[in-house]
Amino acid sequence: MDYQHIRTELADQILTITLNRPDRLNAFTLRMKDELVHAFGEADCNDDVRAVVVTGAGRAFCAGMEMQPEDGGQVFGYDDAEGMEPPLSKIRDSGGEVSLAIFRCRKPVIGAINGPAVGVGMTMTLPMDIRLVAANTKVGFVFTQRGLTPEACSSWFLPRVVGMQKAMEWVLSGDIFLSEEGVEAGLFHSAHDKESVLEAAQAMARKLIAKSSPVAVALAKQMLWRNPTFDHPKQAHVVESKMIYWSNMFWDGRDGFTAFLEKRDPVFDTPLHDVPKGFSFWPEPPLK
Amino acid sequence: MDYQHIRTELADQILTITLNRPDRLNAFTLRMKDELVHAFGEADCNDDVRAVVVTGAGRAFCAGMEMQPEDGGQVFGYDDAEGMEPPLSKIRDSGGEVSLAIFRCRKPVIGAINGPAVGVGMTMTLPMDIRLVAANTKVGFVFTQRGLTPEACSSWFLPRVVGMQKAMEWVLSGDIFLSEEGVEAGLFHSAHDKESVLEAAQAMARKLIAKSSPVAVALAKQMLWRNPTFDHPKQAHVVESKMIYWSNMFWDGRDGFTAFLEKRDPVFDTPLHDVPKGFSFWPEPPLK
Amino acid sequence: MDYQHIRTELADQILTITLNRPDRLNAFTLRMKDELVHAFGEADCNDDVRAVVVTGAGRAFCAGMEMQPEDGGQVFGYDDAEGMEPPLSKIRDSGGEVSLAIFRCRKPVIGAINGPAVGVGMTMTLPMDIRLVAANTKVGFVFTQRGLTPEACSSWFLPRVVGMQKAMEWVLSGDIFLSEEGVEAGLFHSAHDKESVLEAAQAMARKLIAKSSPVAVALAKQMLWRNPTFDHPKQAHVVESKMIYWSNMFWDGRDGFTAFLEKRDPVFDTPLHDVPKGFSFWPEPPLK
Repeated sequence: MDYQHIRTELADQILTITLNRPDRLNAFTLRMKDELVHAFGEADCNDDVRAVVVTGAGRAFCAGMEMQPEDGGQVFGYDDAEGMEPPLSKIRDSGGEVSLAIFRCRKPVIGAINGPAVGVGMTMTLPMDIRLVAANTKVGFVFTQRGLTPEACSSWFLPRVVGMQKAMEWVLSGDIFLSEEGVEAGLFHSAHDKESVLEAAQAMARKLIAKSSPVAVALAKQMLWRNPTFDHPKQAHVVESKMIYWSNMFWDGRDGFTAFLEKRDPVFDTPLHDVPKGFSFWPEPPLK
Repeated sequence: MDYQHIRTELADQILTITLNRPDRLNAFTLRMKDELVHAFGEADCNDDVRAVVVTGAGRAFCAGMEMQPEDGGQVFGYDDAEGMEPPLSKIRDSGGEVSLAIFRCRKPVIGAINGPAVGVGMTMTLPMDIRLVAANTKVGFVFTQRGLTPEACSSWFLPRVVGMQKAMEWVLSGDIFLSEEGVEAGLFHSAHDKESVLEAAQAMARKLIAKSSPVAVALAKQMLWRNPTFDHPKQAHVVESKMIYWSNMFWDGRDGFTAFLEKRDPVFDTPLHDVPKGFSFWPEPPLK
Repeated sequence: MDYQHIRTELADQILTITLNRPDRLNAFTLRMKDELVHAFGEADCNDDVRAVVVTGAGRAFCAGMEMQPEDGGQVFGYDDAEGMEPPLSKIRDSGGEVSLAIFRCRKPVIGAINGPAVGVGMTMTLPMDIRLVAANTKVGFVFTQRGLTPEACSSWFLPRVVGMQKAMEWVLSGDIFLSEEGVEAGLFHSAHDKESVLEAAQAMARKLIAKSSPVAVALAKQMLWRNPTFDHPKQAHVVESKMIYWSNMFWDGRDGFTAFLEKRDPVFDTPLHDVPKGFSFWPEPPLK
């Protein structure tokens, strides 16, 4: 795919995705959506990619949905006219399509929020595993001030990340707030100088992959997002039991313990494409 | 309904509900339960009400369940003799009836906990979206010290608000603690001088509604409470897609973007009664 | 059961379980698993036990899975050869068996993490209700650095305890970190001098049981872990209504209110074996 609204760079096994419409403060378009979904799909399958960092070109991270019609800006993505009347069965919020692509990507995804992020610019970062932010930067879930409701799966992710009280305050008011308030509430991992937030995110990515098995990381990421939705820990126990046994007997875990006992670095060489996506333990519900 | 144990005042689109038995430290009665359920039902449907603030008359917020029989105090509410033997199918905890009425109310609800709050006086505040508290005030989930179990849906709400470790410490011990410990743990949004907690809560209510669409706020509140219970973010995506499309095309969102581009205040005039309660996305389970 | 890898001591109604292989830094064995499952089962049923504290002998809490074959160390527990091939229906992670035993125990369980805790040494503490830790101590979820995935039901418990962002950082990297970082993130209740962490945990246990009803505590613990998994607070309301009515009419609650009104200590004497395990409100899913 020929990227026009993003650009990507792979270095040291870290794929950096840059929202790349700096003259429009990286406002989100349907084309950007398609490119992001494509890029996260590629990152998921490419064994050369161990982690993904997402940032913005220029002074903003993402100013939200593009609203200028000449830019092809449209709030909603849909395939055809069918489904535009109730029950709206084919309507798909475009921010949500990006969030689901991030959620499905088996590599760690780190947000490097280098400047202002509002609306979908903020909500699409919530499925990222860790978010670093520029200090003293304006962010906000501004939907209600536009007469709109939260999107990009943010109603699922935000209460998980910051709890209900802060989620309500930010979403109901629709107010802009500073990144420091977000750090305090746990929305962001940490705040950094604007110039160094990308570098800090890449350093975090290196930390996540430095000593860990790619296959184990891919499985662990899925387990942490999905197992907590089980009603009983016994259900997580069933999944975990199969995962750790299989990892230990047939995948990177074969050498992990031995290397530790022998005080040497382990050989982790199980290709990710040998590993089923979560053993089909978590079937995806149909879209309806 | 002629309120005797609460009083209500509507000003600037904010309904202030005051627990009003100051000579009994606003102890909770079955009559108070009926009045609160009625008041939240009215607030839910009345387009003139944009937000609700709940406080107590006098020096306490609520000293818990009324235990003096002469006041008609009874711990449980039930309709008739049927169901008083196992499987206790008709037994209804009265605090839970209030909590469910608050949960169902589509307007933001803010607690102005102006003084001591124990037992049901504390648990009925958990479904409120935001809780402000008086500084240096005694609060507690005292049930186990009376040989009783937590109620008012607090076993569902409290771990969502403060996490499991603090919830266990407070509930299992049944101990009284100071409001500052609650602020630290995220139980309360913030602590204020006793004299100013109501004013601060009303200011928070004004902040929530100042620039936001009533319809969008009503939908967003339901989405934040209910979408996280889905097993997969895709299910939230389906709900969100329909909500934002409909909001943008037919409700307050029609003017939201245009007004933003034209740098003027938007016209938000969609009546709430035009909006189905959550599109029936979240059917209520039967009582059984 | 003749304990060889743990030891237990009952004093003042508090059962202290000590991981007891100090020459091996209390590394976890299949025998230790069997003994812990047995001890928590006994604690669950014994009315003389009001709370459980878990600590380690010597300078460590638990160095993780025993990896020296001469110690009978094996990562996995299973009953027989059947089920060792996909779909691995009988594979049971041994750490998970301990976690489930802790989860099922109706007495409060407090971790006194007196020194380093890594791997299963850390994950088996997550189902404990409260965790106290020694200051300046190394802990970690090191699985991915051994090519393994998280276990002991940690994928279910950890995001509930510390949220998703910290869980991802710790689990994906597999890094060791200091206990202070865990306190900051809510993993631990508090840090204490290494010499006083056990004493502090026992003091916390005494606080939890000092004034509370054993039966109410047993039910409340189950309600706090399990009711939040319901999709709607109404389902918690149904459980809570029956629990509090029954407690008030037939169990320790009979005297709780009366004693409070009479300003005397209540008589709490309902035997726990009179109380069904959660009224069968939360059926356990089958292992499959």
